[in-house]
Amino acid sequence: MPLVVDIHTHVYPPSYLAMLRTRKTVPYIHDPSTQASPRLIILSSDDDPAIPLDQRGRPIDASYSDISTKLSFMKQHGINSSVISLANPWLDFLVPKEAQEWAQRINDDLEFTCAQANHTADPTGTRPLSEKQTLFAFGALPLSAPDPATIVTEIQRLSTLPHMRGVIMGTSGLGTGLDDPRLDPIWAGLQDSPLLLFLHPHYGLPDDAFGADTTNRYGHVLPLALGFPLETTIAVTRMLLAGVFDRFPRLRVLLAHSGGALPFLAGRIESCIRHERKFVANGGQLPGPRRSVWDVLSSNVYLDAVVYGSAGLKAAVAAGGGSDRLLFGRFWEMILLGVEIYILMLIVQFCTGTDHPFFPPLGEEEQEWPSVTTNYKAIHESFDDDRDAMDAVLGGNAVRILDLK
Amino acid sequence: MPLVVDIHTHVYPPSYLAMLRTRKTVPYIHDPSTQASPRLIILSSDDDPAIPLDQRGRPIDASYSDISTKLSFMKQHGINSSVISLANPWLDFLVPKEAQEWAQRINDDLEFTCAQANHTADPTGTRPLSEKQTLFAFGALPLSAPDPATIVTEIQRLSTLPHMRGVIMGTSGLGTGLDDPRLDPIWAGLQDSPLLLFLHPHYGLPDDAFGADTTNRYGHVLPLALGFPLETTIAVTRMLLAGVFDRFPRLRVLLAHSGGALPFLAGRIESCIRHERKFVANGGQLPGPRRSVWDVLSSNVYLDAVVYGSAGLKAAVAAGGGSDRLLFGRFWEMILLGVEIYILMLIVQFCTGTDHPFFPPLGEEEQEWPSVTTNYKAIHESFDDDRDAMDAVLGGNAVRILDLK
Repeated sequence: MPLVVDIHTHVYPPSYLAMLRTRKTVPYIHDPSTQASPRLIILSSDDDPAIPLDQRGRPIDASYSDISTKLSFMKQHGINSSVISLANPWLDFLVPKEAQEWAQRINDDLEFTCAQANHTADPTGTRPLSEKQTLFAFGALPLSAPDPATIVTEIQRLSTLPHMRGVIMGTSGLGTGLDDPRLDPIWAGLQDSPLLLFLHPHYGLPDDAFGADTTNRYGHVLPLALGFPLETTIAVTRMLLAGVFDRFPRLRVLLAHSGGALPFLAGRIESCIRHERKFVANGGQLPGPRRSVWDVLSSNVYLDAVVYGSAGLKAAVAAGGGSDRLLFGRFWEMILLGVEIYILMLIVQFCTGTDHPFFPPLGEEEQEWPSVTTNYKAIHESFDDDRDAMDAVLGGNAVRILDLK
Repeated sequence: MPLVVDIHTHVYPPSYLAMLRTRKTVPYIHDPSTQASPRLIILSSDDDPAIPLDQRGRPIDASYSDISTKLSFMKQHGINSSVISLANPWLDFLVPKEAQEWAQRINDDLEFTCAQANHTADPTGTRPLSEKQTLFAFGALPLSAPDPATIVTEIQRLSTLPHMRGVIMGTSGLGTGLDDPRLDPIWAGLQDSPLLLFLHPHYGLPDDAFGADTTNRYGHVLPLALGFPLETTIAVTRMLLAGVFDRFPRLRVLLAHSGGALPFLAGRIESCIRHERKFVANGGQLPGPRRSVWDVLSSNVYLDAVVYGSAGLKAAVAAGGGSDRLLFGRFWEMILLGVEIYILMLIVQFCTGTDHPFFPPLGEEEQEWPSVTTNYKAIHESFDDDRDAMDAVLGGNAVRILDLK
């Protein structure tokens, strides 16, 4: 059996859920006085006054924060290590003066959870990764803090925590996107740390991108299937265009959902950059990026392989220059939209991930999780009989890239 | 030498340009009284009052409508047949009462152009396609006509014109997108005709999808590299979700730019559909599509291979189930944004296309068109030594799918 590492698996620590319970605006938890489940409302589109509070958003239970449930899940599915991260919308919404304190609290909570689980699994710390269930974590950043220096301080502190392997971040940055020059100290801090940046969508696209009334007609399909990956694609392209990867050539970014549509559109992006008349290279006044999209894809970007088909997986592998940048992981946000599935997914500089506890099987009686099947099928189709590549994607890449031990 | 067919190559017939000269709102042509070139303004974003009229949009010359220039271009680049089509924004903007008359005029113009050129190339009609330069056409539809029956009538008329092989259409349909049930008679008319529907972007995404001030900072890169393909992806996904391919299983759609991002996101779209709780299959009230994305991709959809890299090309081939749905073509809209390049591209049920006269080399002295090189490189990397697949993509598929003779 290959070592399996899940790099896309979220938690809401109890302290975070308690904080959401005190809120009345998105994101918030509505706790009914009845026996009904509490409701988690994190998307503005789900905060619809026309829907009764006890039906708004989605129900949550202990599995959202209970680590023993996650460890059972890992054992059941042959996952050796999970790199847990706070689920969206992370700490994006906090008032500035509370951001630092909450980031420290959440990150200490994640670190403690990992330390405790790993000690229980192997008190003497002598067993190999492949013979136990272990946890590592991506921390959260206080992005709404009044001063970027506060964020940098938390990055430096995270680097000293033994189980931290990166940070998870949405696409809003300090509020205006990831091409904001005020983020430079954060990129510098990450580049000079061993931490990987896990870039994850949350905000989707403006409603009018999809056309009037499409939510009523098609549910969440368009925002979920297209909005989320396109959000990621736009965000990372803006980073590229702003020269972030020129100024911080050692920044390492893990993109959710195989980069959205980046591997497919990379050539087109590169072509448009090389021919943009506003850029200096073509006689214009704006700098434009110096490094090519292909260069960035093969040296800065890692992708999870959450593409649900071998067509996308082939593009993801080709864009990254091979399977050594692809990571296995699970796909989480569907749960937020009421979709009760569990999806195994892969990360290019490809690693492994699952998204527990968010995707149980559709039926009560089902044991096989349909999207696990779908994604395993895509992996097998893409790598054929290349056992080494499969093993790398399922766990070996994550061990190497995240220095798991 | 393989037979080369360009399925993505536009013209503005002189009558169309004359009509644009009479207009003062987008789309329009500004004809300076000076020696300067006329300016073509077709995008709202280019109709900026802050820019002097004689610098707005882009300059146009005779090559936009002169067929002898196109034929010379074809000869120079080894293209045997071009399937010419009206360039965007087509007839979308016409007042209803003028739509039918203009569609007939433009389509008759295209038909006459093809007939004349082909007669000149081969007066006796006895030489094989591979030994001459010939033209075929995709017609335009009067989509703003007061009654869909008018559109259907034009489709039926187009079917009788000997050089028509399809229709070109944007994503706005009758004004509210391609999932509009009022389009059903049009889909029925196309399905029952030998005509292929060439779906082409023009409108992009809402500006706020890209973030404030990004046009000032990055020129047209984001709308062109991401907005256009995402527009196509959203449009065809809405058709799918609305059951268009269930009701019209024989409808054949050629998607520009290899389907935008459809081949990459197909698996994700399929997964989201299969788990959407609003759809009947999951106990909901909305019908949802019956046929899978993969089924539609391998039986209704053809793609051009304008992806500028082997990563995307591999996904496009895999999504379509092979190279027999991929067509060679050129990429046109960059010219509208002032990018002076010429790009060869491919169509999955893959054909061939170029976009003449829109992409001359960057420098005055250059003979090799950089994007031709880029795309030929991608084709070679993707098909390796599979000469049959190469030949099919460059021309064989187009001959078969469009019944060229």
